[in-house]
Amino acid sequence: MTDTKRAANNLLVVGTVAIDSVKTPFGEADSVLGGSATYFSVASSYFTSVRLVAVVGKDFPPSYMDTFQKHGVDTSGLVKMKGETFRWKGAYGYDLNVANTLETKLNVLLQFDPVLTKEEKNTPFVFLANIDPDLQIKVISQLESPKLVALDSMNFWIENKKESLLKAIGMVDMVIVNEGEARELTGHSNLVKAARAIRKMGPKTVIVKQGEYGSLGMVGDEIFSAPAFPLEDVFDPTGAGDTFAGGVMGYLARHGKVTGEIVRQAMIVGAALASYNVEAFSLQRLTALHFNDIVARYNEIKRLTKFDDFVH
Amino acid sequence: MTDTKRAANNLLVVGTVAIDSVKTPFGEADSVLGGSATYFSVASSYFTSVRLVAVVGKDFPPSYMDTFQKHGVDTSGLVKMKGETFRWKGAYGYDLNVANTLETKLNVLLQFDPVLTKEEKNTPFVFLANIDPDLQIKVISQLESPKLVALDSMNFWIENKKESLLKAIGMVDMVIVNEGEARELTGHSNLVKAARAIRKMGPKTVIVKQGEYGSLGMVGDEIFSAPAFPLEDVFDPTGAGDTFAGGVMGYLARHGKVTGEIVRQAMIVGAALASYNVEAFSLQRLTALHFNDIVARYNEIKRLTKFDDFVH
Repeated sequence: MTDTKRAANNLLVVGTVAIDSVKTPFGEADSVLGGSATYFSVASSYFTSVRLVAVVGKDFPPSYMDTFQKHGVDTSGLVKMKGETFRWKGAYGYDLNVANTLETKLNVLLQFDPVLTKEEKNTPFVFLANIDPDLQIKVISQLESPKLVALDSMNFWIENKKESLLKAIGMVDMVIVNEGEARELTGHSNLVKAARAIRKMGPKTVIVKQGEYGSLGMVGDEIFSAPAFPLEDVFDPTGAGDTFAGGVMGYLARHGKVTGEIVRQAMIVGAALASYNVEAFSLQRLTALHFNDIVARYNEIKRLTKFDDFVH
Repeated sequence: MTDTKRAANNLLVVGTVAIDSVKTPFGEADSVLGGSATYFSVASSYFTSVRLVAVVGKDFPPSYMDTFQKHGVDTSGLVKMKGETFRWKGAYGYDLNVANTLETKLNVLLQFDPVLTKEEKNTPFVFLANIDPDLQIKVISQLESPKLVALDSMNFWIENKKESLLKAIGMVDMVIVNEGEARELTGHSNLVKAARAIRKMGPKTVIVKQGEYGSLGMVGDEIFSAPAFPLEDVFDPTGAGDTFAGGVMGYLARHGKVTGEIVRQAMIVGAALASYNVEAFSLQRLTALHFNDIVARYNEIKRLTKFDDFVH
């Protein structure tokens, strides 16, 4: 809160707030705070002021609201509806790159119909987390001269609502998806080709998340290959992708511009945040960070990937 | 040959020379030059003088010998035996990270029994490509005060000759394996943990190859995360790992020392060479390189992965 830059630019995220039950080889957590917009908003809150638009049910624990408050996330757009909160139950095997969904109860998410307030419509940076692409289109249509709009999606929408998704992609400036989605969306197994194909759908900037392997960025024709932080103790990968996206968008909103170089730094910030997030269940680690922790891991990634010029 | 540094230090590789038949989604190549020591020796020949110890059969085409000659590889240790050359037949699907072996005919490889000459025994840098770990041990035992001995292996030996392999690993300074092998060898799915576990088996330096995702290096306690070159057109991944290892060892032998910083540069050199190699079948692209091509791609990787300091 002592961060004077936080108010200068800001960020809107529309997505899900969920109650998760997660099992990994290292333990399990029952009915913990989750959801794409949750991870995203907390991650980005370290860099800029964030407005959250999402829906929860009457069962949503007040203590979970404290998490948003603690991080200064504006929850005036977090609607409480009759019914139960969206619930996700998942498990990971030793290959922590693959989440096995055991149960999904959409609950109030089925009635989610984001109507933005005047302030929300005027937010310069906007992130549409993984929700129905028709809702993403509805949100985009309400925006008034945003500086940057980005979206994420998932295989379910690629398979069931591809036309809407392609329309939504055509309306945004940036796409942040994981490598499986990039391949499925474009039919290209090669990631450079896949990223280029997504750019041809409209967005100037594409970021392909590769989990523990890092990420590939394309800003115009410029390519950036970002490492992940090689972490020894991964506890729960849930939310890593949304945390990464929150770091990216938070850093961009903070700086108020989207150059190739700023996107590179933003991707490293995203990698730093995601690497912290997977060290504990739910948002336990992510909510316990200090700004300097993020900078320290950024510097560590820089040190881990640094190499000198070729020596003849 | 105009390269004055080539003679200063040198490198011995013991491994396989093969005749490969490969099918990828982009075409096929029948009875082409292959084998771990082949890719390795040609790749490393750009940086240092290389001695090859391997075995071929009477059917080995003289034109394939030209490849070694062209690159100044010393083939006095390439024994021609009665029988047929080792043959490998494989196919790749759209996921080019996974090779499907269709047929392996060991042929003369079954009689391979490397007895080193005096000169070979005194080579300062030695690479034991993927062969029976008992043969690797036999080679190591013949060496006279080498500067650096490294080995590669494969899942077959981990599953069938683990004791010998662990003994061989305990005798070398460096292990270069792919991520699947590192996981299978140590039982750790996490690669940092796996690399650390291999270090505990003896070697000071461990390099884990991650295919299109790059590589992870550990020199003492120092970790280096190296990117791969994000290539748009991968044609045939056969030999990429051996080419990478050839680049790494060639660069180390050229500089005659193994510091953390030199290993980092060596891993980028390996990535540069491997990225060229997969652009065509067999060694077509690898044999057509100029020294400056390698430096150019090294610089390109540097540019692709560069990012500035965190901006507050």
